[in-house]
Amino acid sequence: MDVEKALLTRRSVRRFTSERVSGEDLEALLEAGRWAPSGLNNQPWRVVVIEGRGKAEELSACTRYGSIVRSAPLLLAVFLDREASYDRDKDLMAVGAFIQNILLAAHARGLGAVWLGEILKEKRKVGELLDVPGECELAAVLAIGYPAEEPGSASRKPLHDIVLKRF
Amino acid sequence: MDVEKALLTRRSVRRFTSERVSGEDLEALLEAGRWAPSGLNNQPWRVVVIEGRGKAEELSACTRYGSIVRSAPLLLAVFLDREASYDRDKDLMAVGAFIQNILLAAHARGLGAVWLGEILKEKRKVGELLDVPGECELAAVLAIGYPAEEPGSASRKPLHDIVLKRF
Repeated sequence: MDVEKALLTRRSVRRFTSERVSGEDLEALLEAGRWAPSGLNNQPWRVVVIEGRGKAEELSACTRYGSIVRSAPLLLAVFLDREASYDRDKDLMAVGAFIQNILLAAHARGLGAVWLGEILKEKRKVGELLDVPGECELAAVLAIGYPAEEPGSASRKPLHDIVLKRF
Repeated sequence: MDVEKALLTRRSVRRFTSERVSGEDLEALLEAGRWAPSGLNNQPWRVVVIEGRGKAEELSACTRYGSIVRSAPLLLAVFLDREASYDRDKDLMAVGAFIQNILLAAHARGLGAVWLGEILKEKRKVGELLDVPGECELAAVLAIGYPAEEPGSASRKPLHDIVLKRF
């Protein structure tokens, strides 16, 4: 898929078929994330891969979007490693770039995905469930699989609301 | 350019030719950013476009990377709009996704770009120079133009250092 097409047509997908995501696809998503930019190249992102149904079920209890979590054959829990961090603001932006690379790679491969943030209200519990080191702070959960729905319509502010000034 | 090729081959470019970036290219970059995802679709990103040499010169005094700023025919100052913000962590990650979309669109068009973060140490001064509303907080400056150098080699952690666990 062409880059700009991917950038403009990626949408959140919240319902998935039961078809598994292949190991090759999973590796490609992580590889795309890996090449995201970060300040001082500190790469503060960490990931837990969840395909097992038992762990997905436990995670689903941590969010009001549990049905999305249960429906997704692949979940990526993304963490900020606070020990690798040098500037929280910059590192969070880098994690956002990492996530976006993964979402774009998923879209390019015909997978659907959604970036779940509401689950952060239970970030400690999720960290415990996934047994991650204490320095790893939950940043997002990505639910990924083959789409079982057409994404709904999406809207964005017009450019003139985003561009404040030109010099 | 193919999406995955773009995701894997984008590198920071820090020296630019004097060739201007066309209005069409600029619009495509902003359009790519516009379609980034954000929590509650709040789109907390704002941009100031800088092509004029006078303003670029003023900005260059705010960072030790002034030569990059002066060399770039196009600068995009990216801001977090704190009035549009609902959760600082999530909004910073969304701004990171916005920036990454712009960097990828630039790469796809044969442009080079670099994400400058060190300039945030002068975020207030930059906000004043660019005369943005007080609720807009500098998040990054992107320097963009046609590459006058081959990007240097880049490295990333191996996947097994990023993936903490699999369930």
